[in-house]
Amino acid sequence: MSQMPPHYPQLHPSKRILMGPGPSDVPPRVLQAMSTPLLGHLDPEFLTLMDRNQEMLRYVFGTTNRLTLPISATGSAGMEASIVNLVEPGDRFLACVNGVFGARMREVASRAGAQVHVLEKPWGQVFTEDEVKMALAQIKPKVVGLVHAETSTGTLQPMDQIGPMIYESGALLLLDCVTSLGGVRVDLDAWQVASAYSGTQKCLSCPPGLAPLSFSERAEQVLAERKTPVQSWYLDLSMVQSYWGQERTYHHTAPISMNFALYEALRVVCEEGLTVRHERHWELHGRLKEGLAALGIEYAADPNHLCPMLNAVHVPKGVDDLTVRQFLLQEFGIEIGGGLSEFKGKVWRIGLMGESARVENVALVLAALKEALKYAG
Amino acid sequence: MSQMPPHYPQLHPSKRILMGPGPSDVPPRVLQAMSTPLLGHLDPEFLTLMDRNQEMLRYVFGTTNRLTLPISATGSAGMEASIVNLVEPGDRFLACVNGVFGARMREVASRAGAQVHVLEKPWGQVFTEDEVKMALAQIKPKVVGLVHAETSTGTLQPMDQIGPMIYESGALLLLDCVTSLGGVRVDLDAWQVASAYSGTQKCLSCPPGLAPLSFSERAEQVLAERKTPVQSWYLDLSMVQSYWGQERTYHHTAPISMNFALYEALRVVCEEGLTVRHERHWELHGRLKEGLAALGIEYAADPNHLCPMLNAVHVPKGVDDLTVRQFLLQEFGIEIGGGLSEFKGKVWRIGLMGESARVENVALVLAALKEALKYAG
Repeated sequence: MSQMPPHYPQLHPSKRILMGPGPSDVPPRVLQAMSTPLLGHLDPEFLTLMDRNQEMLRYVFGTTNRLTLPISATGSAGMEASIVNLVEPGDRFLACVNGVFGARMREVASRAGAQVHVLEKPWGQVFTEDEVKMALAQIKPKVVGLVHAETSTGTLQPMDQIGPMIYESGALLLLDCVTSLGGVRVDLDAWQVASAYSGTQKCLSCPPGLAPLSFSERAEQVLAERKTPVQSWYLDLSMVQSYWGQERTYHHTAPISMNFALYEALRVVCEEGLTVRHERHWELHGRLKEGLAALGIEYAADPNHLCPMLNAVHVPKGVDDLTVRQFLLQEFGIEIGGGLSEFKGKVWRIGLMGESARVENVALVLAALKEALKYAG
Repeated sequence: MSQMPPHYPQLHPSKRILMGPGPSDVPPRVLQAMSTPLLGHLDPEFLTLMDRNQEMLRYVFGTTNRLTLPISATGSAGMEASIVNLVEPGDRFLACVNGVFGARMREVASRAGAQVHVLEKPWGQVFTEDEVKMALAQIKPKVVGLVHAETSTGTLQPMDQIGPMIYESGALLLLDCVTSLGGVRVDLDAWQVASAYSGTQKCLSCPPGLAPLSFSERAEQVLAERKTPVQSWYLDLSMVQSYWGQERTYHHTAPISMNFALYEALRVVCEEGLTVRHERHWELHGRLKEGLAALGIEYAADPNHLCPMLNAVHVPKGVDDLTVRQFLLQEFGIEIGGGLSEFKGKVWRIGLMGESARVENVALVLAALKEALKYAG
């Protein structure tokens, strides 16, 4: 303990325009909310704010689910919470894998002791109703894991038919809405989703740190009837719900400031209204797509199932991935994402999420890419 | 989706003085850091900040442990991360239980499949070297869970002899430093601690949302030699370390703003210096203790093992717990904590943590308590 303390300079990060796979840019009023002096986690005023965050989350999730709340960790913990609460050792879990996040579900379910089956599609494609139906008939899973917007490939999974079909089969649909929530239509009740989770740092344009989650009545029932304890104490929703519900039983100290930020971020979403917000994402995606085509840049995903807020495109032949991304960051302060796993070095991921989905950002990233291609070409 | 969005007013929380069991008051410069526009989680500038946070955490933990980093969730997830990474199903785990957080260790270890043994002491007491030594000889555990500062009872566990003794026995010492870190001496290397965790919202005076954690070389070795995967994907330290270490492999999106805040909070700690900071906590604890005695209020814990930053005292006979706490909150904006579990309704917990540990706060809480006792008496 005689060690001398390190001394580092004050924080002065460079200005960035965040157009990667998240975090997205955070509106100034949300940043301001982050700097609000704290309340205690059992303060009556904080409890009121929790109720309001739940109500606004129900609105963005398109649900009346009672168990709707932000998990006190990032989006990936939302996935883990959904899985470990629904799955007991030996349960059959069907993972629909067409990218990194479907594969992550498989891994998390396997660590939860599930008997995991995989329905696989090539990266960039989505699942058809028939494909899932056949797998259901064959495997008879308790839970089906599906990704709404696959952040690694930029596909948007159609849900209107597939959701109710899974429900009718008797299986529980577990839906990854990390990238979709707040950017495109998410309609848990219409799709009869058992469990959904998201992250705050994508189309909600709040800093990363919370995972909005929602469980249907049926999923709550399954949770109540478990024979084994949930393997994670931190993510055990029956205890988390005792804090968020009427009992207000202490479980862990909620991230106060992150909940302040989520409150303000959700207020922004509610003021804009989801319909307008979704249209904005689609319109700007259209502009970006047109501009990319003019630059000869092609999408990596099925053109009929593109996700507006995450544009995964092929790195043009002869162009070095990293050179371009570093040029964009250093010359323009623009962050775009690289590819993950089998797309590493081959794909760029251009995000148009929430606050980052702005007409001037589309124009800028296209202009910057044009210069970058000249520089790197 | 035709639902109308809810509309709630702008955030305007009342001013609070946080003197409960955490969160503590956050210095204005840390709040300001929270509102810094974001960097991406793989931005070179963010990676530099991560390195610096690790280095400052090593300083406050009193360690050179390579695997020292903030887990992306609150303190309780730090406990879970420590346990699930060290324990494999069937491993013997000795939980030393003298309050809520020792009991929580028992519960978490049991959910991780450990064969859990409990060494129990009455609430308010600490463990002697001999008691632990005997239990070690009898049980031969792989891991021993011990709480440094028990937030439910206000005891401070002496560590100088017990730590090395556990190490010599061959067991891995897992130490809860949630309330102690940054407030009293924590000396992982001298105590030969295998794994320690904390929270940001106590004596570091950063908002809640991260769990600083440190694993010794020996604990890293145990992790590397596991036969089964860590049951939690989110908390799997080998993957978390791949992001925080040289590889910078994406695992989950780090809570950017919380890491900004931690950076500034740790800068505050480093500027004050740990020796001065610890003395400040002890000195103010002395003043508070004297003032409480004058009010006829008695400590709930062994007077030889009081924890300076968490003063757990008996609610005086004939006084209603809740009436007093509400009076303090409404009239003075002061939050103190109630008792947990068997101390519910019987104990108050007065925190003097980090930024909240100020001479004016001690004077104020004593004056306010005096009035409250008149009002409630």
